[in-house]
Amino acid sequence: MAEQSFGIVETKFFTFAESPHEMTLKSGIKLGPITIAYETYGQLNADKSNAILIFHALTGDAHAAGMHKDAKKPGWWDGMIGPDKAFDTNKYFIISSNCLGSCKGSTGPASINPKTGKPYGLSFPVITIEDMVVAQHKLIQHLGIKQLLSVAGGSMGGLQALLWTIRYPDMVKSVIAVATNHRHTAQQIALHEVCRQAIMSDPDWQAGDYYGKAVPARGMALSRMIGHITYMSEKSMDEKFGRKLIGKEKLGYDFSTDFEVENYLKYRGDSFVQRFDANSYLYLTKALDYFDIADEGNLNTVFKNTKSHFLVVAFTSDWLYPAYQSKEFVKALKGGGLDVSYVEINTNYGHDAFLVEIEGQSHLVKHFLARMENEPPV
Amino acid sequence: MAEQSFGIVETKFFTFAESPHEMTLKSGIKLGPITIAYETYGQLNADKSNAILIFHALTGDAHAAGMHKDAKKPGWWDGMIGPDKAFDTNKYFIISSNCLGSCKGSTGPASINPKTGKPYGLSFPVITIEDMVVAQHKLIQHLGIKQLLSVAGGSMGGLQALLWTIRYPDMVKSVIAVATNHRHTAQQIALHEVCRQAIMSDPDWQAGDYYGKAVPARGMALSRMIGHITYMSEKSMDEKFGRKLIGKEKLGYDFSTDFEVENYLKYRGDSFVQRFDANSYLYLTKALDYFDIADEGNLNTVFKNTKSHFLVVAFTSDWLYPAYQSKEFVKALKGGGLDVSYVEINTNYGHDAFLVEIEGQSHLVKHFLARMENEPPV
Repeated sequence: MAEQSFGIVETKFFTFAESPHEMTLKSGIKLGPITIAYETYGQLNADKSNAILIFHALTGDAHAAGMHKDAKKPGWWDGMIGPDKAFDTNKYFIISSNCLGSCKGSTGPASINPKTGKPYGLSFPVITIEDMVVAQHKLIQHLGIKQLLSVAGGSMGGLQALLWTIRYPDMVKSVIAVATNHRHTAQQIALHEVCRQAIMSDPDWQAGDYYGKAVPARGMALSRMIGHITYMSEKSMDEKFGRKLIGKEKLGYDFSTDFEVENYLKYRGDSFVQRFDANSYLYLTKALDYFDIADEGNLNTVFKNTKSHFLVVAFTSDWLYPAYQSKEFVKALKGGGLDVSYVEINTNYGHDAFLVEIEGQSHLVKHFLARMENEPPV
Repeated sequence: MAEQSFGIVETKFFTFAESPHEMTLKSGIKLGPITIAYETYGQLNADKSNAILIFHALTGDAHAAGMHKDAKKPGWWDGMIGPDKAFDTNKYFIISSNCLGSCKGSTGPASINPKTGKPYGLSFPVITIEDMVVAQHKLIQHLGIKQLLSVAGGSMGGLQALLWTIRYPDMVKSVIAVATNHRHTAQQIALHEVCRQAIMSDPDWQAGDYYGKAVPARGMALSRMIGHITYMSEKSMDEKFGRKLIGKEKLGYDFSTDFEVENYLKYRGDSFVQRFDANSYLYLTKALDYFDIADEGNLNTVFKNTKSHFLVVAFTSDWLYPAYQSKEFVKALKGGGLDVSYVEINTNYGHDAFLVEIEGQSHLVKHFLARMENEPPV
């Protein structure tokens, strides 16, 4: 695995306004102006044929690779993006954008509503994965790119990758969809609903109007604890924590923390409160739950205009986005005569594998992208 | 499957007090007097050789079979217990007891502390599965039974069954352990910790001192929502709910309820608030998390004095108590030369299967018990 990092990067911002200043969302509601935060790594070549668009997962951001000045940690997919890495910045021009509805620089419920001068809060419209894709499309147009060599992402990022090829079939040469599915299922909706209820039942949430006051920290922490349980596998939790006690010789026989796994969740919950906006979490989970690539219709016809090549990766121990769900859309793609490589990586890491199983994914992505360079435009 | 019910039953109560009035818990703390709620079905035979002790799961109670007067629903295992059923009340004397620490008639945190005249609340000592078993043992002694034909339970009930044969090897002819394990794992602890934090971070919890005031309803409901997700399998949730909308033609594009699965969880959460005590939930989940049958020691030696015969049942889609966990203690039992039947029932029902897969379990239990009748006492 290459250890070289892309170096210091800065997040950039692109603001667009349709006529007069708004974009019409899937719900029919108009929103605007819209800012999209993004980063780029590598150089766009002369014929603009080496661009790859990367999408983050639920609580991610545009900072996928390299280091921010004075930061301690690199971007969330730094193992995958950089010189000689899977997404090789010596060869490709990588664009990573923060999704609409997030709180990491793109317009979302924590943004200032220009009409009121105050944060949108719950007056922000419910957005969809499709709205995220339409907003990204404006960014790609702005960058003057006519066709992307690839669109790639894991988890929520994978949904966006799949929608790109349906919405803009002439602009997507290939799709890399990792640990993802074509529609959110009952269990995924259920888990999100618990997280939303945890936030919304926190008195500090105040119907979303908490900006400048105390944030709904208890609800946020609970949400994140649930999240982390679903990102790991039963096996990886047992291997990492087992029944290890935290700084004590024996059980406490009280309701303080006994086990390391409890302490880990508490730490993860508390740090989430510092780094994410509660309302954004509500909006993004809702966008996920609303996602059905066929809009409750027929999966076998939804890819009919698609010409992209596909690399689909699932992980054996991922129970949040189980491999069988990837196989469902792989079957539909193959049924449509499309070029699809499907790989199941054997790992204990659960859903987190898309962030940590760098070596296995790198091998697949590197070879897939090299092949895509030699394919004609779609 | 027999449809005949045992008929009208009443819960009975047994109160005991060791010298002077207390039982020493595993923690070393003394508690007493202790009341155990229990029900019985069928008749104890002359030589008292036909008694079977049944244990409920986390939020269950002593009312396992038959109907309470004016009730609408029978006991929680009515499909398994009754005339001609698996636990045949024409042949066996069935005892079902509510565990120590619960809020269904046995002494627990909602009980009145005789020293203060007020509910214990958090002054109730942390109890263990072993303490539950010791309290049940007093009840069995009180009933004059020297040896139980069987001890049987699913989930938390299974843990108690396994501990009975270790703690009282001369009193247990056979063990029926369903959907259970020999130690709680990191994921199980993690899920319980989220539930506890949900309750404890509800302002109405008031450090456990909410009796006579508002109960921590929001935290309770969240806990139960999480619980129900873990009791079902991904598959059974998808089969039952899929992406079905609740009373609307299309998505609402707001934060009201859209999907049936959300509504189901809300209903389950709200009804739990009415029927269970929040502090009991804290104490019982803690007892589960503390459970390691080998007390963090060697599983292969812990059954050394055991002489019981075993029927162990697991369910293929149970991800809360996965089948591999049953196999771990089955291996230890077989390694000790014990008579063990292990069966994995193929089902989509997840952990709930122990309550709903009546036909498959009945067949196994009926034949196992018939065989036990012919075995000599241990």
